Parts: sequence; structure tokens; C-alpha cells
Amino acid sequence: GTGSFVSPNGLIITNHHVAFGAIQQQSSVDQNYLHDGFYAKTQADEIPAIGYEAYVPRSFTDVTDQILKATKPGMSDLARYQAIDQKKKELVKRAESAGKVRCYVATSFSGMKYHLVTSFRIQDVRIVYIPPQAIGEFGGETDNWMWPRHTGDFSFLRAYVTPDGSPATYSDKNVPYKSATWLPISSGPRAEGDFTFLLGYPGGTLRYRDSYSISEHVNHHYPDDIQTIGDLVAIMDAASRADSMAAIRLSGTIKGYNNGLKNYQGMYRGLLRSNLLEKKLKQDADLATFINSDPGRIKKYGNVLPSIKTLYADLETYRQKDRAMNTLSMGSTYYGLARQLYKWSIEKAKKDAEREPQYMDRNVDNMRRGMKDVQFELVPAADRKMFEYALWRVVRLSANQRIAGFDKALKLSPGADTAAVIQTFLAGLYEGTKVNDLDTRLKMFDMSKNDLLALNDPFISLARDLYDDEENLVTRNKTFSGAVDRIRPRYIEALVTWRKGGMYPDANGTIRFAYGDVKGYSPADATTYKFITTLDGVVDKETGQEPFASPKELLDVYRSGDFGRYNDPSIGSVPVNFLATHDGTGGNSGSPVMNGKGEIIGLLFDSNWEGIIGDYYYDPVVKRSIIVDIRYALFVLDRVYHAKRVLDELIIH
Amino acid sequence: GTGSFVSPNGLIITNHHVAFGAIQQQSSVDQNYLHDGFYAKTQADEIPAIGYEAYVPRSFTDVTDQILKATKPGMSDLARYQAIDQKKKELVKRAESAGKVRCYVATSFSGMKYHLVTSFRIQDVRIVYIPPQAIGEFGGETDNWMWPRHTGDFSFLRAYVTPDGSPATYSDKNVPYKSATWLPISSGPRAEGDFTFLLGYPGGTLRYRDSYSISEHVNHHYPDDIQTIGDLVAIMDAASRADSMAAIRLSGTIKGYNNGLKNYQGMYRGLLRSNLLEKKLKQDADLATFINSDPGRIKKYGNVLPSIKTLYADLETYRQKDRAMNTLSMGSTYYGLARQLYKWSIEKAKKDAEREPQYMDRNVDNMRRGMKDVQFELVPAADRKMFEYALWRVVRLSANQRIAGFDKALKLSPGADTAAVIQTFLAGLYEGTKVNDLDTRLKMFDMSKNDLLALNDPFISLARDLYDDEENLVTRNKTFSGAVDRIRPRYIEALVTWRKGGMYPDANGTIRFAYGDVKGYSPADATTYKFITTLDGVVDKETGQEPFASPKELLDVYRSGDFGRYNDPSIGSVPVNFLATHDGTGGNSGSPVMNGKGEIIGLLFDSNWEGIIGDYYYDPVVKRSIIVDIRYALFVLDRVYHAKRVLDELIIH
Repeated sequence: GTGSFVSPNGLIITNHHVAFGAIQQQSSVDQNYLHDGFYAKTQADEIPAIGYEAYVPRSFTDVTDQILKATKPGMSDLARYQAIDQKKKELVKRAESAGKVRCYVATSFSGMKYHLVTSFRIQDVRIVYIPPQAIGEFGGETDNWMWPRHTGDFSFLRAYVTPDGSPATYSDKNVPYKSATWLPISSGPRAEGDFTFLLGYPGGTLRYRDSYSISEHVNHHYPDDIQTIGDLVAIMDAASRADSMAAIRLSGTIKGYNNGLKNYQGMYRGLLRSNLLEKKLKQDADLATFINSDPGRIKKYGNVLPSIKTLYADLETYRQKDRAMNTLSMGSTYYGLARQLYKWSIEKAKKDAEREPQYMDRNVDNMRRGMKDVQFELVPAADRKMFEYALWRVVRLSANQRIAGFDKALKLSPGADTAAVIQTFLAGLYEGTKVNDLDTRLKMFDMSKNDLLALNDPFISLARDLYDDEENLVTRNKTFSGAVDRIRPRYIEALVTWRKGGMYPDANGTIRFAYGDVKGYSPADATTYKFITTLDGVVDKETGQEPFASPKELLDVYRSGDFGRYNDPSIGSVPVNFLATHDGTGGNSGSPVMNGKGEIIGLLFDSNWEGIIGDYYYDPVVKRSIIVDIRYALFVLDRVYHAKRVLDELIIH
Repeated sequence: GTGSFVSPNGLIITNHHVAFGAIQQQSSVDQNYLHDGFYAKTQADEIPAIGYEAYVPRSFTDVTDQILKATKPGMSDLARYQAIDQKKKELVKRAESAGKVRCYVATSFSGMKYHLVTSFRIQDVRIVYIPPQAIGEFGGETDNWMWPRHTGDFSFLRAYVTPDGSPATYSDKNVPYKSATWLPISSGPRAEGDFTFLLGYPGGTLRYRDSYSISEHVNHHYPDDIQTIGDLVAIMDAASRADSMAAIRLSGTIKGYNNGLKNYQGMYRGLLRSNLLEKKLKQDADLATFINSDPGRIKKYGNVLPSIKTLYADLETYRQKDRAMNTLSMGSTYYGLARQLYKWSIEKAKKDAEREPQYMDRNVDNMRRGMKDVQFELVPAADRKMFEYALWRVVRLSANQRIAGFDKALKLSPGADTAAVIQTFLAGLYEGTKVNDLDTRLKMFDMSKNDLLALNDPFISLARDLYDDEENLVTRNKTFSGAVDRIRPRYIEALVTWRKGGMYPDANGTIRFAYGDVKGYSPADATTYKFITTLDGVVDKETGQEPFASPKELLDVYRSGDFGRYNDPSIGSVPVNFLATHDGTGGNSGSPVMNGKGEIIGLLFDSNWEGIIGDYYYDPVVKRSIIVDIRYALFVLDRVYHAKRVLDELIIH
């Protein structure tokens, strides 16, 4: 997510859903800040946002030459992938060695450009104000991706550093960070057509994908994943109905999967309705004609489209196997843990620079914390059902895509009762394993490979049996990536030549400027959406049941009808959320939306359902960002919860 | 439903969903008219609409004096109910004795006025044209009650009589009925604000209910029924998932229950959101003040509100028992059949005029057909689960509302394992009964009470054991109705006096004129609905899956873009459905919607979700009728299915 400094004293504004994890960590049954909201009346009352760090952008350096120097013409795609990976790690290690900063190498245009991104790393982040969940998440999963929206999705955090200004983990000696810049807030009104702009960190778009890549998405990725995720959710739902503690343990995973499912369904629907594949096929055919009409272009780009074709034809030879293995990892946390423990026991014996990035020293603490935190989510019965679901997929793989480790482990003889074999196999795994025991698991985490295997834990043994298959798939995927890094930049170059330039880079998680107008839209025949929603709309949605159960404090103010200066006469109520035509995507959450004077008028917190397809192409007719109006945040702070200290610190124009 | 003559030769236009049952009866797997649609290319190809009759209004006679003469001051409420019931039956019998007509007595203002309604009875109705279900039911349950709507809910039937003009059942000697009047059709365009009117048979509204009646609805009827129906649907859904044949057998019931549930949820939501109970409480308090401020009024109306209060206080003493028994009848078809068979064995021994109306000779054929037709819907496992659900409600009844027959049949001793007792009881019923066997059931239907009881069928024995409880509840409900007929007219009279007149009667199933303007509305914050939908919207909803899978013929015409004179330049497409502000309700389905010249411009087929509450009060801001634009019907007939014979017969202005 994205946050902005809104005072000289390190006060950060961001979304409620960005700060959600921090307030969840600090909540208990007795002191339920998540439910009730949190307000630190004095600076001393600000509590740690456990696990949160803030990165303040410092520099963005083109390192394309250094990266590409590591590659050699004619090297294999796997070698190419590894050379680039190695060089990235080196650059990051060198840049981080001075301390205080966190770095990574960002890729643009699928490998045409590389940038070293350096941020000042703030490790002590605290919670200043978070509204009750019933405001910050009003509408919940029901309204997710939807308009009209009525969510107070904002919160305030504060960055702390040592007295000398260095990053440090939480300490009562730390002091608020003094940012060199901060944003003022506008309390002014809004009208359709108003110009706005934002800064944020959109995660990724796919605007320059070729027809082969789109075909993979349309014909395999979305239909298959929608089916798989839907089936896994159904299994978890059934387990939740059967056992209320399982329901609590699985709720986070189910929520995440449902969110992904809704996104995928929107993408898939958008891809089909827009006939994007057809359009890309035509584009590639026209591009081929353009290339083939000139001998110089043939020499330069003649092999680009055939190379991509070959690449995806190769994917065909292991797609089902890869997807079956993914289903297993997605469904079974037990297996995921065993795989990670076994892999780590191998990686830890290597030099740091030679390890897979996630197993490097800088990530080990995070990994160990993950090993602990996952304990709460374990539900053996559901895990086993999901493993079984994946197993059926595995046993049905065609002869040329078998997973050798499973065939060895299952010992399925011709004519065997597959269901019985699977049940016996599952019983052996789940009754014999200790990977679900927290103490044992943490001990396993620190073991050498030999000690780990000597435990004869059935899940660890399975991870060992599947290791070659897993690594083989990892290598094939790396090879694929290496090939993409090699070919796709030339595809985009050919596109640029053909279209005579004018192409902007895809979103890639780096900071990005976007502009847009405040504007409603028409989502369907005979339906028009206005650009702004109101407090009346909040009350209109009230059911008294989550996710439509506003706090009494808010309803009391509503009933009083006394909204003071927060009443906007042009809408006859308090503004809540509004829309603008920004070209954003996931990762933009929390982005400050500003007027032409650079004053914050809202925080982006979602994209509309009709615009999800924006990852593939930007359609100004339906693509909208959903923004919490800053005046709603001020109203909640002022009239509803009297959070005077926060209001006083803001610079409100 | 309502239909209109649209040619001098008995051609009737009505809704697809009104003609649905007729086309369903004529459909088979091989000749699926329901799915494919039906078009009789010549008159000889018109097929019988089995079970359908058409009633042509002939007269509407005030019989209030004759009815009320049968009542005497001071008679008990039950006696009053029976006297009125008896007089109605007499009037109907006398009026029908000349043949050719079908009659009933309609009640207005809750018993202030009675009218004898006489209709010419056409018994031979045939199917002329019905569009494919995918047009006539486009959107299905998903879009039911919803706007924007895209349904081609129209069909054509024809009325036949003997050559001398008398009603008769189907015969190839019959000829088309020559109606003295018929309606022309307008092919002209539509604009927001256009005046329209309609004629139809709205079933019932409750505009003059007192606060006690509304309290009963808000606090008991809706919350309780929504829970019960929802639970029964969940049981049937589970049974459907477990067994695909059960799914087919239960689909009709589930569909009906879901439709009712959606209606009830809309009503309940509307009642709560409108605070209707609060308003009625205030109205009754103000009315009491008005009555009590004048000695003459006290004498005349002083006991009205206290009497209503007493009436509902009495209801309190048997409500739970009544609702438990209703749950049993709703859930268990087996029990419903046993109850009906046993009751019929008693009623058949009485003189015709002394029987309950539904057991009178004129209804016996219908009843026997019902005994046959229900066979398809029987699913023992689901029926038993629903019986069990009702039983738990029965055993939990408070001590003062026990159902004696059940207590006797269940023999629940203190400390007994209720669950085990219920299972044993159910096993005895379902394993021993033959009411589910069609042949046996039809034999039972013709048996005397003694012969029936001699079978010792456990379900029939249960019906006998519960007979006194059932009849007692029937009597109490009749007494309640008698009291209502006595008190409510005086309540309305008091209201009229207070408001100084100007009150129109509630809808009561008799023919009714309504007017309204073509108009969109706003269903929610930031959302506006236009008054008309388009063919683009149909295609926009397409998923290729029911209920959004249009026939290829329609999609082909859409893709051709050649809509001829059916393209409306003001909307840039073919019009499909539109809205108007009529005050209608269930029973208006099929009503011809006309312009100021009396030309048909559409057929009403639904009400919008936000306007369901219209049964209690009319709110012009949100209450809309949903109308299929006659130009969509003409487009489908002409451009899509080339039904020239129908088009040639219509009188199109």
C-alpha cells in the first residue's frame, strides 16, 4: 500500500485496510481496537504497528547496462535468468550495505529497462488513529470492488526514528520522523469534471502482452484458477460450517481467496466481453505483416513472434503438471510448510548469494515469523480435504506429465482402487506428521537436512520425494522467465517501431503519477452512477448486521442532522466516497488523491468491478478509482469521534 | 393474470409467465416448446392450453344488501362468518345455474361492500405463439422483481367457443370467439413523462390496515415466515444437491418458495425502512383522539379500536400453534395429502352447499387433478426432513398452545430423548404410508371415511388424530375473519369521516383501471435508473448460461445490426422493457398498458423490488410497474421468428 506524510512530524495517512493488520495484531477480546477503533489521545498513547515498516523513496537509478552486461548473447534462457538474478542480488546487497535503506531492482518493459529503487527504511511505525471496523470496512466483502460505496477507508500512523534520525526498531527513545515534505489537506467541495492526480505504487499491469500470453490467460489461467479457487473455498466453507473454531481459523484465507476469486471473475468476464484475445491476435498478425514487409525489420524482429510461439508451445508440455502442483501448494498448508522446511534445509547450506532470494539471510527472520504465525490458521480436516482435492488432479495427469515423486509415493498399480489408495496415503501423512506442531516445526526450521530427514516425518519425506519434480518445475519456470526477459523487450521494441513510439511503461510496483477527472459512469444498460456518495447512503445500507452495521456514534450524529461545515450543499449531505478516472491498479491503495494545488482531497482505496480489466487495457468509459473523500475522514475525526489531536496536526486548507 | 383481445377473432395477448403452464404441459423432451418457443403457422396448428380458461367480464353487481341481510346484530363472529359464506355460495350458485358464466362475490373495504362478479367462461383456450423461454423468461429468478430488466414476457393465445357462441371444452368443431371489442397496438415511440393507463386484475392491497394488523405483519408474519421459508428452501436445496432427480422434482416448489421469499424480504425491508408501524400507531392514536372528542362519534366508533385490540390479543393465544401447523402443511406434502383425503372423506358426506368451498362439487375435478399432478413433485427424503423441521417447532410449543393430537401421537414423556422419539415417529409414518402411491391415493380419494380409516395408513391416522386441532384452528381463523368483517368496515368508516372522504377501495382481484407516467427512478444513493432498456442490454447480460442465454436467432439479428423499423433512434437500439408509475400489484400480470388513445404500448409483467411495499402504501418516488415494450414483442415476432400470421392479425397503428 501507499501512505503520505501529512504533517512535519511523521504523521502518515493511509487506508484502513492498509493499517488493518497492525490494529488486528494489537486487538484482543477485551480490548478490541479493530472493532472499536483506536485513538491515541497523546503521543505517548501511540502503539506499535507490529510488523509494519515505512519506506520513504530516496532514489531511482537506471542500472540497465550493469544488468545486461551480466548476460551474453547465445547463453541459455536458464543461464540468462540466473545471471540477471545474480546481478540484481549483488546490486541490492551493495546498495543496502551502508544501512538505513531497503532496495530492490525493478524491471520495466519486460526487461528492456532495470532500475535500482532505494528507500529510507523506517522500522518503528505506530498507530495514531483508526476508525472502527464498521466505518473503515463498511460494506465488507459484499461491497468490495463495488460502487456505490460508503467506506471510511482511512487511518493515521506515525513514523519514528532514533533521535539522530536513523532507522531503528521500536524503542521508547525513538522520536517522530521529520519528513522534508508533507501534504496539506483541502476541505473544499467537489464537482464532476474536477482535475485530480495521485502518487502511488501500482503493482503491475499487462498492457503490452502478446496474443500467446493473452491466450494463456483466457484459455487456461482464469478458467482453471476460478474453478480451483472456487472448489477450495467450497471445501473451507464446508469445514467452517461443521466447526465454528475452524471457521475462525479459516476466515482470513477464505476472505483472501474470495477477494482473489472476485478479481479473477471480473478479469475473466472483462477479457471475454472485450474480445481482447481476438484483438491481440489481429494486432500480432498486423505486426507480423509490418515486420515481414521490410528485410531490415525481418532481420531484427523476424524471429520475435515465432520465438514467443515456441515458448508457449513448450509451456503446453508441463502446464497441467505445474497447475496440479500449484493446487497442492495452495490447498495444503501442511505440504507448503514441509516443502519450505526441506528446501530451507538445503538452501541454508549454500552461500547467501547463491540462495533463492526468499531464503537469503535478509529474509530469514520473516520466514521464521511466518512459521510461527501460520499456526493459528491450521485446520487439519480442511487441509486434508484440500490435499485430497489436489491429489485427484495429480492422479489424473496424462502419461507425459506425470509427477514422478507422487507416482513413487502413491504406488498406484493398474486397476487399483484409487480412492482407497488416496485415503490410505492421506491417513499416513496426517496421522504421522508433526509439521503442524509449533515447537517441533520451529526445531525443524533450524535443523540440517540430514537431521530433518532422520525424523522420518511423512510430510518431510513427501517433500523430499517431490523435491526433484518441484525443482524441475522451478527451473522450467525460470527458463520461461529468462526467455521472456530476452524476447519480450524486442516484441515491445517492434511494437514501438510499428506504432512510432508513444508507449508508457507498465505499472511495476514503483512510484507512479496518475491523473484523472472526478466522474461517474454507466455500469449497465439503463443505469447511471453518480460520481459521489453520501452519508444518507450509508444509513440507507444499514441493516444492523455486519458488514452494514454502523457504530452508534455515527448514527447518532446522522440522526442529529447537525453536520456543521461537513455538509456539502451541492449534495445535501456529508460526502463519503467519490470516483475519478485514474489509471491505477492493486498497490495504489492509500494513494493520496490531490487537486491541482497538490492538496489531498481523498485516498484511493479500490477500483470498480467494471474497471478490473484495466490491468490489460485502460478504458476511460468504465475504469474508475474509488476514493474516500477526505471530508468524510475529517467528519469522522471531528463530529463523530472528536479526535482533536489528529485534526490539530493536519494542515487543512 | 390478465389478458386482452387483440383481434376480432379471439386472439389474446398476455405474459409468457401467464401462459407458461400451458406450454409446459404441451412440452416433452423431444418436442420442447417451452425451450424452443411455439408458433402455430396455421389456425389448425394451434394447440390446447390444457387447464386454461378465459373469463370475459360481463357484469359487476352490488349485492351488499343481500349479503348483510343474512347477518344479525349480536350474532357471534363465527356465525357471522358462516352466514356470509353461505349467502355468497347461494348467490354464486344461482348466478351460475344458467350456465356459460363463472361467478364469485368480491369484498371491498374489508366487508363494507360486496359485489357479484360475472364472467363469460371460455373453456377452450389454445396456444398461438410463445417465444422461447430464453426470451420470455430472460433473467429468470436472478432478475425477478429487478430493474433494469430485459425480458420478452409476452405470448399469444386464442379463445374458442362452439359455432353457436357457447362455452365448451376443447373440440375440433369449436371456432374462434368473436369478441365485441379488441385493442389495437401502437408501434410509436416512447418518452419519459408519457401518459399511460391499464386495465387489470390486481389481487389485493392492504392500504387501510390498522396498527394492530401492521404490527402482526412486522413483528410476526414476515420475520417468522422469512425464517421458515428460508429454512425449508435450505432443506430442499440440500436434498437437490444430494440427488439430481430430486432436484428436478423440487425445482418448481423451490422456485415458488424463493419467489415468495424474495417478495416477503422486500415487504419486510420496506416495512422497516418506511417505519410504517410507527406511522400507523400515530394514525390510530390521532383517530382515537378524533373519535373521543365528540359524544356522537364515541357512540358510533368508540369501540372500534378497542375491539381490534381484543381481536389481536386473542390471536396471541393461538398464533404459535397456528404457525407450527402451517409449517407442517407447507413443508410436508405427504401430510397435506393425508389431511385433504381425510377431510374430503368427511365433507363428501355433507350436502354440497354445506361443504367448505374448496370441497364443493364444482371444485372436485380440480381437486382430483391435483391429487394426480402432485405425484411428480414427491421426494420422500426431503418431505421427511421438512416434517421433522415442523415437528421440532411443534414439540417446543408452550404449555398453553399444545397441539393435543401431536402430544397423543408422539407420546413425549418427561425426560424422553425427543430426537429419538421424533425419528421413530417419522420412521413409522414414512415407512408405513401409501399416500405417496398414486394408485392407492386415487382410490383413497373415492373412499368413505370408514373405509379410509380401515386402511390404518399411518399418515391418514395422523390426519385423524390432528383433525380436531386443525378444525379448531380453522374455526378460530373463521371467527377472526368474521370479526374482521364486522369491525374493519367501521374502522374504515371512521377513517373516512376523519379524513373527510376521498378513499379508494383496496385492490381485491376485480377489474381495475390504473394510470401512470413513463418514468425512471433512483433505487439507491448515487444510482439512477433510466425508464427504458434496450437490446444492447440483453446482449450485455449474456453469459451463455441460463437464465442469460439468448437464442441464437436473436443474437444473429443483433449481430446483423439490422433492426429495421424496430430501431428507436432516441435510444439507439431496439426497446425491450420500460417503467411507469402505475399503482398495481400481483394479478396485474399481462395487463395491457395503453397510451392516451387506448392503443397497447406494452404488457405489465412485474413490479420493481423497491416498490413491493406498494401493497401497504403507494410511493410515487420508487413504485414502478415493469412493462415489456410492445415494440419488442413485434420485433421478436417479425425480425427474429417471422411469425407473419400473428403480425397480420394484429391491428397495428
